[in-house]
Amino acid sequence: MLPLHSHPSGRHFLQIPGPTNVPDRVLRAIDNPTIDHRGPEFGELGKAVLAGMKKVFQTESDVIIYPASGTGSWEAALVNTMSPGDKVLMAETGHFATLWKKVAERLKLRVEFQEGDWRHGADAEQIGKRLAADSGHEIKAVCVVHNETATGVVSDVAAVRKAIDDANHPALLMVDTISSLASIDYRHDEWGVDVTVAGSQKGLMLPAGLSFNAISAKALKASETAALLRSYWDWKEMLAINPSGYFPYTPATNLLYGLYEALQMLFAEGLENVFARHKRHGEATRRAVQAWGLEILCRKPEEYSPALTAVMMPAGHSADAFRKTVLTHFNMSLGQGLSKVSDKIFRIGHLGDFNDLTLCGTLSGVEMGLSKAGVPHKPGGVQAALDYLSQTSKPYPA
Amino acid sequence: MLPLHSHPSGRHFLQIPGPTNVPDRVLRAIDNPTIDHRGPEFGELGKAVLAGMKKVFQTESDVIIYPASGTGSWEAALVNTMSPGDKVLMAETGHFATLWKKVAERLKLRVEFQEGDWRHGADAEQIGKRLAADSGHEIKAVCVVHNETATGVVSDVAAVRKAIDDANHPALLMVDTISSLASIDYRHDEWGVDVTVAGSQKGLMLPAGLSFNAISAKALKASETAALLRSYWDWKEMLAINPSGYFPYTPATNLLYGLYEALQMLFAEGLENVFARHKRHGEATRRAVQAWGLEILCRKPEEYSPALTAVMMPAGHSADAFRKTVLTHFNMSLGQGLSKVSDKIFRIGHLGDFNDLTLCGTLSGVEMGLSKAGVPHKPGGVQAALDYLSQTSKPYPA
Amino acid sequence: MLPLHSHPSGRHFLQIPGPTNVPDRVLRAIDNPTIDHRGPEFGELGKAVLAGMKKVFQTESDVIIYPASGTGSWEAALVNTMSPGDKVLMAETGHFATLWKKVAERLKLRVEFQEGDWRHGADAEQIGKRLAADSGHEIKAVCVVHNETATGVVSDVAAVRKAIDDANHPALLMVDTISSLASIDYRHDEWGVDVTVAGSQKGLMLPAGLSFNAISAKALKASETAALLRSYWDWKEMLAINPSGYFPYTPATNLLYGLYEALQMLFAEGLENVFARHKRHGEATRRAVQAWGLEILCRKPEEYSPALTAVMMPAGHSADAFRKTVLTHFNMSLGQGLSKVSDKIFRIGHLGDFNDLTLCGTLSGVEMGLSKAGVPHKPGGVQAALDYLSQTSKPYPA
Amino acid sequence: MLPLHSHPSGRHFLQIPGPTNVPDRVLRAIDNPTIDHRGPEFGELGKAVLAGMKKVFQTESDVIIYPASGTGSWEAALVNTMSPGDKVLMAETGHFATLWKKVAERLKLRVEFQEGDWRHGADAEQIGKRLAADSGHEIKAVCVVHNETATGVVSDVAAVRKAIDDANHPALLMVDTISSLASIDYRHDEWGVDVTVAGSQKGLMLPAGLSFNAISAKALKASETAALLRSYWDWKEMLAINPSGYFPYTPATNLLYGLYEALQMLFAEGLENVFARHKRHGEATRRAVQAWGLEILCRKPEEYSPALTAVMMPAGHSADAFRKTVLTHFNMSLGQGLSKVSDKIFRIGHLGDFNDLTLCGTLSGVEMGLSKAGVPHKPGGVQAALDYLSQTSKPYPA
Repeated sequence: MLPLHSHPSGRHFLQIPGPTNVPDRVLRAIDNPTIDHRGPEFGELGKAVLAGMKKVFQTESDVIIYPASGTGSWEAALVNTMSPGDKVLMAETGHFATLWKKVAERLKLRVEFQEGDWRHGADAEQIGKRLAADSGHEIKAVCVVHNETATGVVSDVAAVRKAIDDANHPALLMVDTISSLASIDYRHDEWGVDVTVAGSQKGLMLPAGLSFNAISAKALKASETAALLRSYWDWKEMLAINPSGYFPYTPATNLLYGLYEALQMLFAEGLENVFARHKRHGEATRRAVQAWGLEILCRKPEEYSPALTAVMMPAGHSADAFRKTVLTHFNMSLGQGLSKVSDKIFRIGHLGDFNDLTLCGTLSGVEMGLSKAGVPHKPGGVQAALDYLSQTSKPYPA
Repeated sequence: MLPLHSHPSGRHFLQIPGPTNVPDRVLRAIDNPTIDHRGPEFGELGKAVLAGMKKVFQTESDVIIYPASGTGSWEAALVNTMSPGDKVLMAETGHFATLWKKVAERLKLRVEFQEGDWRHGADAEQIGKRLAADSGHEIKAVCVVHNETATGVVSDVAAVRKAIDDANHPALLMVDTISSLASIDYRHDEWGVDVTVAGSQKGLMLPAGLSFNAISAKALKASETAALLRSYWDWKEMLAINPSGYFPYTPATNLLYGLYEALQMLFAEGLENVFARHKRHGEATRRAVQAWGLEILCRKPEEYSPALTAVMMPAGHSADAFRKTVLTHFNMSLGQGLSKVSDKIFRIGHLGDFNDLTLCGTLSGVEMGLSKAGVPHKPGGVQAALDYLSQTSKPYPA
Repeated sequence: MLPLHSHPSGRHFLQIPGPTNVPDRVLRAIDNPTIDHRGPEFGELGKAVLAGMKKVFQTESDVIIYPASGTGSWEAALVNTMSPGDKVLMAETGHFATLWKKVAERLKLRVEFQEGDWRHGADAEQIGKRLAADSGHEIKAVCVVHNETATGVVSDVAAVRKAIDDANHPALLMVDTISSLASIDYRHDEWGVDVTVAGSQKGLMLPAGLSFNAISAKALKASETAALLRSYWDWKEMLAINPSGYFPYTPATNLLYGLYEALQMLFAEGLENVFARHKRHGEATRRAVQAWGLEILCRKPEEYSPALTAVMMPAGHSADAFRKTVLTHFNMSLGQGLSKVSDKIFRIGHLGDFNDLTLCGTLSGVEMGLSKAGVPHKPGGVQAALDYLSQTSKPYPA
Repeated sequence: MLPLHSHPSGRHFLQIPGPTNVPDRVLRAIDNPTIDHRGPEFGELGKAVLAGMKKVFQTESDVIIYPASGTGSWEAALVNTMSPGDKVLMAETGHFATLWKKVAERLKLRVEFQEGDWRHGADAEQIGKRLAADSGHEIKAVCVVHNETATGVVSDVAAVRKAIDDANHPALLMVDTISSLASIDYRHDEWGVDVTVAGSQKGLMLPAGLSFNAISAKALKASETAALLRSYWDWKEMLAINPSGYFPYTPATNLLYGLYEALQMLFAEGLENVFARHKRHGEATRRAVQAWGLEILCRKPEEYSPALTAVMMPAGHSADAFRKTVLTHFNMSLGQGLSKVSDKIFRIGHLGDFNDLTLCGTLSGVEMGLSKAGVPHKPGGVQAALDYLSQTSKPYPA
């Protein structure tokens, strides 16, 4: 028996900010028998998922699908475009921006890390200033996390693009959308992103195991001269064979079944509606947090994440003890504070395959957990969410 | 594509009082390849589920498993024990008691229906009086619904047994546990029940399609002379072959896989804990209803159902319009009022594979639905439930 | 762990003549979460499967779906149309015809059983003679098994109809198609059948648990005056509510999901193609049997079943010992000889979700089992099947 | 609807030499809801699969699990142990050895490729000579493919180890077991392998998406000074956290469920029995090929693969046209000839979750396909396999 049962009865609430709850339709799709990855059906599948992913990235450019975790697509973005010793400018938005930096350092890139307090998005103005000062164009890329999963802060990617352009700087713009894609409006082409990095296990509603790069023509050109060594992550062979729907090495066929189904679900709902749903659930969550009298980690309302909300623990209280209470009493997993904010915050994931009542269950678990764990708070958070959700709900079908 | 998707995102809340939400483990079990129903593995399966069902019925006597809906096991109870024209005494507890009466009438039994107001359980005292008056022992059976699914009222089966015994009356006692078995404590042997009727789609956490009779020695003896015609429902052939784990006609093999798994889950949790969980969720639900200022259909607190709560609509408001609002806005199915109470009540199912947060989501859907549908109520129902659940929750594992 | 694994590796070959191998698509459909059987999606599902079943029965008349085994639909056919003491004429084609007779007898019908040797189909000429002699029209129904699952013999239903018509006799014609429907061409309307009986677990490729009646206008009229008692099986209430897609009592929702998917598969393949496939596999199997020098139970080539082949054991050899050898050595279940032919024959099912290579695997298991069990036979059966299948195979897609 | 259906009825025969047919138990395991990869259940899962994989590798050393295709684990083996410009000695056994070489070249290693004819395993004697001549110990690693998936030839790993030892050479021994692990006896520790490379989609009976390294103490030591850049593939962080059952980045949780289940299946059957089963199926397949009068690509009987058999097409006939005939007529996928042997051979996979009757179906498809495609051959291949399988089969349970 698989060791999957944290409680004897009822569904687990997986409210970490990803991996998210995989919809039954997607799980059932993954459960189909494996087919020949060189046979005719596979070609149809491959073309369908590649085309669908372009729509999700809002791009006409190329998309790569790797059988790998999201971490791999960070590496892929760098090794395909950079040469040893290249300088990259990265914005410290939180733990995941820091991990990406670590990847870059391991690849012997010189990283300039724009310091952050983990409560703000990337500072486009600062980035612009730094680029303007870089008259020698030593900086080869600017790397930004769109939605910092560790903090619940969204960076303004269009503003970063504008800052680069205003500085007349040729640096590539690379963006991590691992926890934003298919949850928060994201426009690879319109925002002029060169490499977008993504993963399967958040807004795409799949288990972990697939990751993605979306690539601009400029990035593709850069890859021709980029000297970092690469094999598994190399775009070239992928792009050569992908038009036929095939892959240069054995793809993760069953996860691609799930991706196919998830794409059907996203398009049936409509991406606009998907984004609006996440925004509304983010707002409801924050109203609950505010009603409890707790502090949201993200400082600026315009940077609030529609995908997750990081909540600060009152001083003297352990976020991890609180999370453990929630898990053992209420069968819900919440996200932990990572590294700098370890034990100081907890994170509520409200992304992926989600709806109003599951959110209400989630917030109820938080509110009851606060009581149970003796964390000082005002009651009424769930009530505040109910009020907002009820006021703003719409019938379906209309 | 199966037409199963009432909303584009997130899990449907199936909070009718059955069929209940089938746990993933049970669905996956049902999804296994069919085996030879006359082969050796099947014999092991058959013996295991028959033995498990005895534990659930709390009986040492025989249990029958039919490939049929619960409705069939009502018929089975009667045709195996009664003869044409026999008189049966039935208690009008609600819609399902009335349906059972209809079955009896179609079988040309003479039914004496002890009138009820659909807000109380069976009246053991009245039953005792009637039996005492039946000095000729014309009444062959007393039929009671343990948990009236239409009203959320539990009848005191032990009290009915005592009334029969005190009247020194030989009538068989037949009890419908379709919506109570494996949710509410039920003791076939200790309470002296002769035929217990049950179905798969409620506390047993399976889809509909299996139904059950548990049979006392006295009922078995009655079946030897019972003259109602029977073939599919006949106990005799079943009991002859069941000890080897096989069935006289093709069983619903895949649902039996599910039953096997559901039994493992129930025994792992412990039946005592299952019953306590349902009681606690019933109490939380009623606290919410009372906080909303709405009236519970069930009049007597000692008869409150741990499996579902029927709520009365304020005069002038349509329960069905409210339910439709809840379905279209919040992706939740609530139970409708049936027959006499059509459009006047709605029913909240809180049985089967269930936990605190799913209950909170459920009650949130009701509270928001009340607002959205303009039903007069006080806010705070969910809050009342949160307070109670939080106070009474226990960690797992401890 | 479910006790489902007769061998440690590879797929079990379930080659009994039903329940058949359920296709993965159907298993996955059954594995979907249960929905509200009174909600809007269910209505769509119900209408779709009822309409689909009419196409399968090749009828414009009514179809009933029961949550029950096929055995139940035998009983349903009789209790809805007959009155106590009515005489029915049944043809002894084998074990299942005999079981249907037993059902009729338990319902206190007077059965006239046209004796058979279990190696022929129903004798239309004899039926015609008997009806011609029944000038008082005492016989109320003629009951025939289309494909006798116990023997692999197909009866000519159209000929039986003609015999009844030629005798100008008003008896209803009832036909059991449990192991023929959706495998062998069957025409409820064209052949003038009054009640067709069917089950889910054979050509419909589902697990057991659903059964069916198709009903002519004449049968429906008969039901108005039929005096046998009935409740669960009563057509009336079903037909009243079915047009909206709903059922009068809780349906076996998850099996209906499977039925929906199975219907999509049958219609996508085309019923004509389904029938041709079964015929071809029947022929290949018989060529193998003949090459082995074994005798086919069915005596007349025009009555050979496309769904299964019953093979006679050489004298002095036990068919059951042979089947056990096949099960333990080759992980395949074959059908046993039932009652009169117990241990004397074995049955090879070649119906349902099936293809050439699975048939070759099946026949290989039989040939190796014959060797292993020391049953006298000539080698070359599989080779004969290969030759025939190869010659007659067609590409797909064309 | 997923584009997965190459034929309208029956199971597809996926007889490429991997990805293999995934057993239902494993597919169902993968279909379970995703859990928190940082929660307590996950830790149990992680420890269980890591421990299980050690048993499969027959090692006491460390095992790494990557969320990646097998191709990734080739890269991982090299980047963790080598420095830029290091020389590696690789044996050209076929297409996959050549691909591994390509990976090495992309990583700027200097590859010495011992030429082969794609019909033999690695030549231990030659390797020994070359190492003896390498008195400066310029060669840092010897890389061998255990079972060359492109040719069906097994290399003698123990002999290669002995050759290295006899030459007193410090080179690491790296072995690709992608298509042998859990099908062919393989002993990481006993054979003194330093890095073993493996994937999930062959003998481990999973979909593609997981890959593995097993690491000797010597390899681990080498990784401390290896200067190739690495991040995703870095052993260090993995090994630091794995003892607790966790991973440094998001693991492919649902595939790990499948791995857990597959390991249970392998251990229940017993690895010895698994190896014996594959050997026996290889022998049966070769007997069929020889009876057809076709030539096996592998030249030396002691190097025949128990996992797949590559068959040479008679001159003037297209292997790919033949494979297409088999696919369109018989719903079976066979492996194609790759690169040097493109269109000249086809490959029959007989590994993974497999049994006698599925093999018979497979060989039947080949034999019928040969006829259908007009490929000159003698009949009787299937018969030869039947004879062998029947003689050597054993009952289960015994």
